[in-house]
Amino acid sequence: MSTFGCAHLRVVNPYEVAFREARSAVGAGAVVRAAVEYTSVAEAVADCTLVVVTTALGHRELHHRLWRLPYAARLIRRRLATSPVALLFGSEKFGLSNDDLSHCHWLLRIPTREEHESMNLGQAVAVCLYELSRTPEEPPRPERKLHAPAGDLERITIQLIEVLSASGYINPLNAASTSDKLRRLLRRLDLSPRDAQIWLGILRQLRWKLGS
Amino acid sequence: MSTFGCAHLRVVNPYEVAFREARSAVGAGAVVRAAVEYTSVAEAVADCTLVVVTTALGHRELHHRLWRLPYAARLIRRRLATSPVALLFGSEKFGLSNDDLSHCHWLLRIPTREEHESMNLGQAVAVCLYELSRTPEEPPRPERKLHAPAGDLERITIQLIEVLSASGYINPLNAASTSDKLRRLLRRLDLSPRDAQIWLGILRQLRWKLGS
Repeated sequence: MSTFGCAHLRVVNPYEVAFREARSAVGAGAVVRAAVEYTSVAEAVADCTLVVVTTALGHRELHHRLWRLPYAARLIRRRLATSPVALLFGSEKFGLSNDDLSHCHWLLRIPTREEHESMNLGQAVAVCLYELSRTPEEPPRPERKLHAPAGDLERITIQLIEVLSASGYINPLNAASTSDKLRRLLRRLDLSPRDAQIWLGILRQLRWKLGS
Repeated sequence: MSTFGCAHLRVVNPYEVAFREARSAVGAGAVVRAAVEYTSVAEAVADCTLVVVTTALGHRELHHRLWRLPYAARLIRRRLATSPVALLFGSEKFGLSNDDLSHCHWLLRIPTREEHESMNLGQAVAVCLYELSRTPEEPPRPERKLHAPAGDLERITIQLIEVLSASGYINPLNAASTSDKLRRLLRRLDLSPRDAQIWLGILRQLRWKLGS
């Protein structure tokens, strides 16, 4: 990260022993020392208007749109001109859960040989950040549209889940997978910050009415 | 190397214990098993018409021309069309000697922050091979996204208005202007035909619950 000028490392539920050791190690880099710890993906990406996951494909059904790294980097650079973007990587050991994935807007694939489905984490990060900092031929035009931060989207998600539980739309037997589906459904809307507030108001009223 | 489709690994005077262990390890990759051992850089690159070294700069006087990776990769790809090319990397511990360097035709630099002079070996290899196998920018495919027909959007609009009237969100005094606002709000979502059906189902359930 440091090599390619990325300063903001956020870690979600790291293995405490290893994380503490890494930070206090002699020669620990500034990026690691300044890393901020979170207990959920939702909190970690709350201020980002775009959340992108690097995927190895193949292992699961794809519920998201998928872009190859060179084009994905263009989209990310354009968004970075106006607001923070999160690149979300799974742990080397466990990868990402479907719930983690449901927080992302779309997927990014590093083009590799077909036979390969997974890449070493450190190398995947290096390749992604290299492509992101690779000097583009021309400066990217900033996007005109404004996008709601992930924190607002998550608040909408939680309200919608409550409303749909109260209304009987969500079957308690598969509440978890329905929640993931709703989370993705809401991220596909690509809400503006203003419209996000309107939807929050609508859902608040519905929740109040269904609760009363 | 394997990830990016490079099959020919040549090692010069490896540390024998580690090399033997790596090759005989369970799950050792085909690239490592097929690696060929040499006792000098000269022998290892003998059949190549171009030898390129990745450098971190700074530490020594430069006797070679230096190209940034994106341009260097173009030169290498062109040469690869007719003859073998060697990418020469130093060991993580000792790097390359001036004698090693003297075998190369020119130097390649991965563009990084100025403060950084060296990169992890595995990451440097990954980034170089990614750039080499990177498909030159192609025009992005036109969006394939499907869009819900206006009839579906209007059905959603009507259901939403009914739900919001039942919940008290819509004030009867300005119902008409609120309806217009909701209609525009829904059109800004740019729903796909499938998502439109999901939202219709959600609203149908809410209307039923609020009506009962």
